[in-house]
Amino acid sequence: MTDKTLLEKLDWRYATKKMDPTQSVPQDKIDAIIEAIRMAPTSSGTQPFELIVVTNPDIRAQIRSAANDQAQITDGSHVLIFAAWDNYTDARIDEVANLNVQKRGESPLIDQYYGNLKALYVPRAAETNYAHAARQAYIALGVGLVAAAEQEVDSTPMEGFDPAAVDKILGLSERGLRSVVLMPLGYRDPSGDWLLPMPKVRKSRETMITFVD
Amino acid sequence: MTDKTLLEKLDWRYATKKMDPTQSVPQDKIDAIIEAIRMAPTSSGTQPFELIVVTNPDIRAQIRSAANDQAQITDGSHVLIFAAWDNYTDARIDEVANLNVQKRGESPLIDQYYGNLKALYVPRAAETNYAHAARQAYIALGVGLVAAAEQEVDSTPMEGFDPAAVDKILGLSERGLRSVVLMPLGYRDPSGDWLLPMPKVRKSRETMITFVD
Repeated sequence: MTDKTLLEKLDWRYATKKMDPTQSVPQDKIDAIIEAIRMAPTSSGTQPFELIVVTNPDIRAQIRSAANDQAQITDGSHVLIFAAWDNYTDARIDEVANLNVQKRGESPLIDQYYGNLKALYVPRAAETNYAHAARQAYIALGVGLVAAAEQEVDSTPMEGFDPAAVDKILGLSERGLRSVVLMPLGYRDPSGDWLLPMPKVRKSRETMITFVD
Repeated sequence: MTDKTLLEKLDWRYATKKMDPTQSVPQDKIDAIIEAIRMAPTSSGTQPFELIVVTNPDIRAQIRSAANDQAQITDGSHVLIFAAWDNYTDARIDEVANLNVQKRGESPLIDQYYGNLKALYVPRAAETNYAHAARQAYIALGVGLVAAAEQEVDSTPMEGFDPAAVDKILGLSERGLRSVVLMPLGYRDPSGDWLLPMPKVRKSRETMITFVD
Protein backbone atom coordinates (compact mmCIF):
# COMPACT_ATOMS: atom_id res chain seq x y z
CA MET A 1 0.00 0.00 0.00
CA THR A 2 3.02 2.28 -0.31
CA ASP A 3 1.62 3.36 -3.69
CA LYS A 4 -1.32 5.00 -1.92
CA THR A 5 -1.11 8.54 -0.59
CA LEU A 6 -1.28 9.20 3.11
CA LEU A 7 -4.80 10.57 2.64
CA GLU A 8 -5.89 7.37 0.94
CA LYS A 9 -4.44 5.38 3.83
CA LEU A 10 -6.21 7.60 6.38
CA ASP A 11 -9.42 7.13 4.47
CA TRP A 12 -8.98 3.34 4.34
CA ARG A 13 -8.38 2.95 8.06
CA TYR A 14 -11.11 3.14 10.68
CA ALA A 15 -11.46 2.11 14.30
CA THR A 16 -12.27 -1.51 13.49
CA LYS A 17 -15.11 -2.82 15.63
CA LYS A 18 -15.08 -6.47 14.56
CA MET A 19 -11.94 -8.35 13.71
CA ASP A 20 -11.75 -11.76 12.07
CA PRO A 21 -10.42 -14.21 14.68
CA THR A 22 -9.25 -16.64 12.00
CA GLN A 23 -6.65 -14.27 10.57
CA SER A 24 -3.27 -13.40 12.01
CA VAL A 25 -1.06 -10.47 11.04
CA PRO A 26 2.24 -11.74 9.58
CA GLN A 27 5.45 -10.94 11.43
CA ASP A 28 6.90 -8.75 8.65
CA LYS A 29 3.90 -6.42 8.89
CA ILE A 30 4.14 -6.31 12.69
CA ASP A 31 7.83 -5.50 12.32
CA ALA A 32 7.10 -2.63 9.93
CA ILE A 33 4.52 -1.15 12.32
CA ILE A 34 6.83 -1.50 15.33
CA GLU A 35 9.68 0.04 13.40
CA ALA A 36 7.59 3.10 12.48
CA ILE A 37 6.68 3.53 16.15
CA ARG A 38 10.34 3.25 17.11
CA MET A 39 11.29 5.89 14.52
CA ALA A 40 8.54 8.35 15.57
CA PRO A 41 9.86 11.69 16.79
CA THR A 42 9.58 12.62 20.47
CA SER A 43 10.46 15.62 22.59
CA SER A 44 14.25 16.00 22.88
CA GLY A 45 14.56 12.50 21.47
CA THR A 46 13.77 10.97 24.85
CA GLN A 47 11.36 8.33 23.48
CA PRO A 48 9.84 8.18 26.96
CA PHE A 49 7.70 5.12 26.45
CA GLU A 50 7.99 1.45 25.69
CA LEU A 51 5.86 -0.74 23.50
CA ILE A 52 4.51 -4.08 24.71
CA VAL A 53 3.44 -6.43 21.92
CA VAL A 54 1.12 -9.12 23.21
CA THR A 55 0.13 -12.19 21.24
CA ASN A 56 -0.30 -14.55 24.23
CA PRO A 57 -4.02 -15.51 24.26
CA ASP A 58 -4.36 -15.71 28.05
CA ILE A 59 -2.78 -12.33 28.60
CA ARG A 60 -4.94 -10.84 25.87
CA ALA A 61 -8.03 -12.31 27.50
CA GLN A 62 -7.03 -10.65 30.78
CA ILE A 63 -6.44 -7.32 29.01
CA ARG A 64 -9.82 -7.64 27.34
CA SER A 65 -11.41 -8.07 30.76
CA ALA A 66 -9.71 -4.86 31.88
CA ALA A 67 -10.90 -3.06 28.75
CA ASN A 68 -14.69 -3.21 28.86
CA ASP A 69 -14.63 -6.61 27.17
CA GLN A 70 -13.72 -5.13 23.80
CA ALA A 71 -13.49 -8.14 21.50
CA GLN A 72 -10.88 -6.76 19.10
CA ILE A 73 -8.28 -7.47 21.77
CA THR A 74 -8.75 -11.22 21.38
CA ASP A 75 -10.26 -11.38 17.87
CA GLY A 76 -7.19 -9.62 16.46
CA SER A 77 -3.83 -11.37 16.60
CA HIS A 78 -1.73 -8.74 18.39
CA VAL A 79 -2.26 -5.99 20.95
CA LEU A 80 0.20 -3.12 21.23
CA ILE A 81 0.36 -1.39 24.60
CA PHE A 82 1.97 2.04 24.66
CA ALA A 83 3.46 2.35 28.17
CA ALA A 84 4.88 5.73 29.15
CA TRP A 85 7.54 6.45 31.74
CA ASP A 86 5.95 7.16 35.10
CA ASN A 87 8.50 9.93 35.63
CA TYR A 88 11.63 11.50 34.20
CA THR A 89 14.71 10.58 36.23
CA ASP A 90 18.40 11.45 36.00
CA ALA A 91 19.20 7.86 35.07
CA ARG A 92 16.66 7.76 32.23
CA ILE A 93 17.82 11.05 30.73
CA ASP A 94 21.48 10.06 31.14
CA GLU A 95 20.73 6.95 29.13
CA VAL A 96 19.32 9.09 26.32
CA ALA A 97 22.37 11.36 26.47
CA ASN A 98 24.68 8.35 26.36
CA LEU A 99 22.92 6.99 23.29
CA ASN A 100 23.42 10.37 21.61
CA VAL A 101 27.13 10.31 22.42
CA GLN A 102 27.36 6.74 21.15
CA LYS A 103 25.78 7.67 17.79
CA ARG A 104 27.18 11.19 17.34
CA GLY A 105 30.37 11.20 19.36
CA GLU A 106 31.39 13.04 22.52
CA SER A 107 30.17 16.63 22.58
CA PRO A 108 29.88 19.28 25.28
CA LEU A 109 26.64 20.37 23.59
CA ILE A 110 25.01 17.00 24.22
CA ASP A 111 26.09 17.07 27.87
CA GLN A 112 24.80 20.62 28.26
CA TYR A 113 21.52 19.94 26.49
CA TYR A 114 20.57 16.91 28.54
CA GLY A 115 21.97 18.49 31.70
CA ASN A 116 19.52 21.34 31.20
CA LEU A 117 16.74 18.86 30.51
CA LYS A 118 17.41 17.03 33.78
CA ALA A 119 17.41 20.31 35.69
CA LEU A 120 14.05 21.16 34.12
CA TYR A 121 12.26 17.80 34.26
CA VAL A 122 13.49 15.89 37.29
CA PRO A 123 12.26 18.35 39.96
CA ARG A 124 8.74 18.39 38.48
CA ALA A 125 5.88 16.33 39.87
CA ALA A 126 5.84 12.73 38.61
CA GLU A 127 2.32 13.28 37.29
CA THR A 128 3.44 16.25 35.17
CA ASN A 129 6.29 14.22 33.76
CA TYR A 130 4.09 11.22 33.07
CA ALA A 131 1.59 13.47 31.27
CA HIS A 132 4.40 14.79 29.09
CA ALA A 133 5.71 11.30 28.38
CA ALA A 134 2.20 10.10 27.52
CA ARG A 135 1.85 12.84 24.91
CA GLN A 136 5.00 11.59 23.21
CA ALA A 137 3.47 8.13 23.09
CA TYR A 138 0.49 9.68 21.29
CA ILE A 139 2.76 11.02 18.53
CA ALA A 140 3.93 7.43 18.06
CA LEU A 141 0.32 6.24 18.18
CA GLY A 142 -0.49 8.57 15.27
CA VAL A 143 2.50 7.26 13.33
CA GLY A 144 1.63 3.67 14.25
CA LEU A 145 -1.93 4.04 12.98
CA VAL A 146 -0.57 5.26 9.65
CA ALA A 147 1.93 2.39 9.61
CA ALA A 148 -0.81 -0.17 10.16
CA ALA A 149 -2.85 1.33 7.32
CA GLU A 150 0.18 1.23 5.04
CA GLN A 151 0.49 -2.49 5.82
CA GLU A 152 -3.25 -2.91 5.21
CA VAL A 153 -3.56 -4.11 8.78
CA ASP A 154 -6.59 -3.06 10.78
CA SER A 155 -6.26 -1.39 14.13
CA THR A 156 -8.40 0.06 16.91
CA PRO A 157 -6.92 2.74 19.14
CA MET A 158 -8.42 2.24 22.61
CA GLU A 159 -8.47 4.50 25.63
CA GLY A 160 -11.38 2.67 27.24
CA PHE A 161 -9.54 0.43 29.69
CA ASP A 162 -8.45 0.35 33.32
CA PRO A 163 -4.79 1.43 33.24
CA ALA A 164 -4.04 0.16 36.75
CA ALA A 165 -5.40 -3.29 35.86
CA VAL A 166 -3.42 -3.44 32.60
CA ASP A 167 -0.29 -2.27 34.43
CA LYS A 168 -0.77 -5.14 36.85
CA ILE A 169 -1.38 -7.76 34.15
CA LEU A 170 1.83 -6.75 32.37
CA GLY A 171 3.93 -5.91 35.44
CA LEU A 172 4.47 -2.36 34.22
CA SER A 173 4.66 -0.52 37.57
CA GLU A 174 7.76 -2.50 38.55
CA ARG A 175 9.38 -1.22 35.37
CA GLY A 176 8.40 2.40 36.02
CA LEU A 177 5.83 2.35 33.23
CA ARG A 178 2.14 3.21 32.98
CA SER A 179 -0.14 1.98 30.21
CA VAL A 180 -1.42 4.89 28.09
CA VAL A 181 -3.30 3.50 25.12
CA LEU A 182 -3.99 0.12 23.51
CA MET A 183 -3.83 -0.71 19.83
CA PRO A 184 -5.15 -4.12 18.79
CA LEU A 185 -4.08 -5.28 15.34
CA GLY A 186 -5.81 -7.74 13.08
CA TYR A 187 -8.07 -7.97 10.06
CA ARG A 188 -11.56 -6.57 9.78
CA ASP A 189 -14.51 -8.93 9.56
CA PRO A 190 -16.49 -7.06 6.88
CA SER A 191 -19.71 -8.97 7.50
CA GLY A 192 -19.64 -8.44 11.27
CA ASP A 193 -18.53 -4.82 11.58
CA TRP A 194 -21.37 -2.32 12.01
CA LEU A 195 -19.02 0.65 11.59
CA LEU A 196 -17.42 -0.37 8.29
CA PRO A 197 -20.36 0.53 5.99
CA MET A 198 -20.83 3.92 7.62
CA PRO A 199 -19.32 7.06 6.12
CA LYS A 200 -16.33 8.49 7.93
CA VAL A 201 -17.25 11.57 9.97
CA ARG A 202 -14.81 14.47 10.15
CA LYS A 203 -15.36 18.16 10.81
CA SER A 204 -15.11 20.46 7.83
CA ARG A 205 -11.98 22.32 7.03
CA GLU A 206 -13.87 25.54 7.79
CA THR A 207 -14.74 24.30 11.28
CA MET A 208 -11.26 23.15 12.24
CA ILE A 209 -8.79 25.42 10.49
CA THR A 210 -8.14 29.16 10.87
CA PHE A 211 -5.77 30.99 8.56
CA VAL A 212 -3.89 34.01 9.85
CA ASP A 213 -2.45 35.60 6.69
CA MET B 1 7.18 11.10 -2.24
CA THR B 2 4.19 8.77 -2.16
CA ASP B 3 6.43 6.13 -3.72
CA LYS B 4 8.52 6.04 -0.56
CA THR B 5 7.59 3.83 2.36
CA LEU B 6 6.56 5.35 5.65
CA LEU B 7 9.91 4.28 7.12
CA GLU B 8 11.78 6.10 4.37
CA LYS B 9 9.70 9.21 5.07
CA LEU B 10 10.39 8.95 8.81
CA ASP B 11 14.07 8.59 8.04
CA TRP B 12 14.05 11.63 5.72
CA ARG B 13 12.38 13.94 8.21
CA TYR B 14 14.15 15.49 11.17
CA ALA B 15 13.47 18.38 13.53
CA THR B 16 14.82 21.01 11.16
CA LYS B 17 16.99 23.53 12.96
CA LYS B 18 17.64 25.98 10.10
CA MET B 19 15.09 26.76 7.45
CA ASP B 20 15.74 28.65 4.22
CA PRO B 21 13.92 32.00 4.52
CA THR B 22 13.85 32.45 0.72
CA GLN B 23 11.59 29.44 0.13
CA SER B 24 7.87 29.18 0.70
CA VAL B 25 5.80 26.02 0.90
CA PRO B 26 3.25 25.95 -1.94
CA GLN B 27 -0.43 26.00 -1.05
CA ASP B 28 -1.17 22.53 -2.45
CA LYS B 29 1.36 21.01 -0.05
CA ILE B 30 -0.02 22.99 2.88
CA ASP B 31 -3.48 21.77 1.90
CA ALA B 32 -2.34 18.13 1.85
CA ILE B 33 -0.76 18.47 5.32
CA ILE B 34 -3.83 20.19 6.76
CA GLU B 35 -6.10 17.58 5.24
CA ALA B 36 -4.12 14.75 6.86
CA ILE B 37 -4.42 16.50 10.23
CA ARG B 38 -8.14 16.91 9.69
CA MET B 39 -8.51 13.21 8.86
CA ALA B 40 -6.46 12.02 11.86
CA PRO B 41 -8.39 9.79 14.25
CA THR B 42 -9.34 11.08 17.70
CA SER B 43 -11.11 9.68 20.74
CA SER B 44 -14.83 9.16 20.03
CA GLY B 45 -14.36 11.26 16.90
CA THR B 46 -14.50 14.47 18.94
CA GLN B 47 -11.54 16.12 17.14
CA PRO B 48 -11.15 18.31 20.24
CA PHE B 49 -8.67 20.77 18.80
CA GLU B 50 -8.37 23.38 16.10
CA LEU B 51 -5.47 24.17 13.84
CA ILE B 52 -4.25 27.74 13.34
CA VAL B 53 -2.16 28.25 10.20
CA VAL B 54 -0.10 31.43 10.42
CA THR B 55 1.74 32.98 7.50
CA ASN B 56 1.47 36.61 8.67
CA PRO B 57 5.07 37.77 9.29
CA ASP B 58 4.23 40.08 12.20
CA ILE B 59 2.27 37.42 14.03
CA ARG B 60 4.99 34.86 13.38
CA ALA B 61 7.57 37.29 14.79
CA GLN B 62 5.46 37.62 17.93
CA ILE B 63 5.13 33.84 18.23
CA ARG B 64 8.89 33.50 17.77
CA SER B 65 9.39 35.91 20.69
CA ALA B 66 7.13 33.71 22.79
CA ALA B 67 9.05 30.59 21.73
CA ASN B 68 12.63 31.13 22.89
CA ASP B 69 13.39 33.01 19.68
CA GLN B 70 13.42 29.83 17.60
CA ALA B 71 14.18 31.03 14.08
CA GLN B 72 12.31 28.32 12.17
CA ILE B 73 9.09 30.14 13.06
CA THR B 74 10.00 33.08 10.85
CA ASP B 75 12.53 31.40 8.49
CA GLY B 76 9.90 28.88 7.45
CA SER B 77 6.83 30.09 5.56
CA HIS B 78 4.04 28.71 7.77
CA VAL B 79 3.49 27.88 11.43
CA LEU B 80 0.81 25.42 12.48
CA ILE B 81 -0.54 25.84 16.00
CA PHE B 82 -2.42 22.87 17.46
CA ALA B 83 -4.90 24.41 19.89
CA ALA B 84 -6.88 22.02 22.09
CA TRP B 85 -10.26 22.60 23.67
CA ASP B 86 -9.83 24.02 27.16
CA ASN B 87 -12.68 21.78 28.32
CA TYR B 88 -15.37 19.39 27.13
CA THR B 89 -18.81 20.96 27.25
CA ASP B 90 -22.32 19.78 26.45
CA ALA B 91 -22.45 22.17 23.50
CA ARG B 92 -19.18 20.92 22.01
CA ILE B 93 -20.13 17.25 22.30
CA ASP B 94 -23.63 17.97 20.96
CA GLU B 95 -22.00 19.51 17.91
CA VAL B 96 -20.02 16.30 17.34
CA ALA B 97 -23.18 14.22 17.79
CA ASN B 98 -25.04 16.45 15.33
CA LEU B 99 -22.31 16.03 12.74
CA ASN B 100 -22.59 12.27 13.15
CA VAL B 101 -26.35 12.42 12.62
CA GLN B 102 -25.86 14.65 9.58
CA LYS B 103 -23.41 12.18 7.95
CA ARG B 104 -24.93 8.88 9.13
CA GLY B 105 -28.58 9.65 9.73
CA GLU B 106 -30.67 9.79 12.89
CA SER B 107 -29.87 6.98 15.30
CA PRO B 108 -30.68 6.29 18.93
CA LEU B 109 -27.19 4.76 19.21
CA ILE B 110 -25.52 8.06 18.35
CA ASP B 111 -27.66 9.91 20.89
CA GLN B 112 -26.89 7.33 23.53
CA TYR B 113 -23.19 7.21 22.79
CA TYR B 114 -22.63 10.94 22.99
CA GLY B 115 -25.06 11.25 25.89
CA ASN B 116 -22.85 8.84 27.83
CA LEU B 117 -19.77 10.77 26.76
CA LYS B 118 -21.23 14.03 28.08
CA ALA B 119 -22.13 12.38 31.38
CA LEU B 120 -18.54 11.10 31.67
CA TYR B 121 -16.57 14.15 30.47
CA VAL B 122 -18.48 17.28 31.39
CA PRO B 123 -18.36 16.82 35.18
CA ARG B 124 -14.59 16.30 35.15
CA ALA B 125 -12.11 19.07 35.96
CA ALA B 126 -11.34 21.35 33.01
CA GLU B 127 -7.64 20.50 33.34
CA THR B 128 -8.36 16.77 33.02
CA ASN B 129 -10.43 17.39 29.92
CA TYR B 130 -7.85 19.71 28.40
CA ALA B 131 -5.13 17.09 29.00
CA HIS B 132 -7.26 14.52 27.18
CA ALA B 133 -7.95 16.89 24.30
CA ALA B 134 -4.25 17.76 24.05
CA ARG B 135 -3.39 14.07 23.63
CA GLN B 136 -5.74 13.86 20.67
CA ALA B 137 -3.91 16.81 19.12
CA TYR B 138 -0.69 14.81 19.49
CA ILE B 139 -2.14 11.97 17.39
CA ALA B 140 -2.76 14.58 14.69
CA LEU B 141 0.73 15.98 15.23
CA GLY B 142 2.17 12.53 14.52
CA VAL B 143 0.05 12.24 11.38
CA GLY B 144 0.94 15.82 10.36
CA LEU B 145 4.67 15.14 10.67
CA VAL B 146 4.27 12.15 8.34
CA ALA B 147 2.18 14.27 5.97
CA ALA B 148 4.86 16.97 5.82
CA ALA B 149 7.53 14.34 5.07
CA GLU B 150 5.34 12.87 2.33
CA GLN B 151 5.16 16.35 0.77
CA GLU B 152 8.93 16.72 1.21
CA VAL B 153 8.25 19.72 3.41
CA ASP B 154 10.42 20.25 6.46
CA SER B 155 8.93 20.70 9.88
CA THR B 156 9.98 21.21 13.49
CA PRO B 157 7.65 20.09 16.25
CA MET B 158 8.05 22.56 19.12
CA GLU B 159 6.97 22.37 22.74
CA GLY B 160 9.39 25.06 23.88
CA PHE B 161 7.12 28.08 23.97
CA ASP B 162 5.00 30.05 26.42
CA PRO B 163 1.46 28.77 25.83
CA ALA B 164 -0.21 31.69 27.62
CA ALA B 165 1.68 34.17 25.44
CA VAL B 166 0.80 32.31 22.22
CA ASP B 167 -2.84 32.06 23.34
CA LYS B 168 -2.85 35.83 23.77
CA ILE B 169 -1.19 36.57 20.42
CA LEU B 170 -3.79 34.43 18.62
CA GLY B 171 -6.80 35.24 20.82
CA LEU B 172 -7.27 31.57 21.67
CA SER B 173 -8.64 31.88 25.23
CA GLU B 174 -11.68 33.76 23.94
CA ARG B 175 -12.36 30.79 21.69
CA GLY B 176 -12.00 28.26 24.51
CA LEU B 177 -8.71 26.99 23.10
CA ARG B 178 -5.21 26.48 24.49
CA SER B 179 -2.07 26.17 22.37
CA VAL B 180 -0.51 22.73 22.73
CA VAL B 181 2.31 22.42 20.22
CA LEU B 182 3.78 24.40 17.31
CA MET B 183 4.83 23.03 13.94
CA PRO B 184 6.72 25.41 11.67
CA LEU B 185 6.85 24.37 8.01
CA GLY B 186 9.43 25.34 5.42
CA TYR B 187 12.51 24.05 3.65
CA ARG B 188 15.77 23.06 5.27
CA ASP B 189 18.86 25.19 4.67
CA PRO B 190 21.37 22.35 4.24
CA SER B 191 24.42 24.60 4.64
CA GLY B 192 23.15 26.22 7.85
CA ASP B 193 21.65 23.29 9.73
CA TRP B 194 23.97 21.71 12.31
CA LEU B 195 21.60 18.79 12.91
CA LEU B 196 21.20 17.68 9.29
CA PRO B 197 24.61 15.93 8.92
CA MET B 198 24.22 14.07 12.19
CA PRO B 199 22.95 10.49 12.29
CA LYS B 200 19.44 10.02 13.59
CA VAL B 201 19.37 8.68 17.15
CA ARG B 202 16.75 6.15 18.14
CA LYS B 203 16.71 3.51 20.84
CA SER B 204 17.18 -0.06 19.71
CA ARG B 205 14.26 -2.35 19.18
CA GLU B 206 15.55 -4.42 22.12
CA THR B 207 15.41 -1.37 24.41
CA MET B 208 11.93 -0.23 23.45
CA ILE B 209 9.91 -3.31 22.60
CA THR B 210 8.83 -6.24 24.75
CA PHE B 211 7.09 -9.25 23.25
CA VAL B 212 4.64 -11.22 25.35
CA ASP B 213 4.10 -14.40 23.35
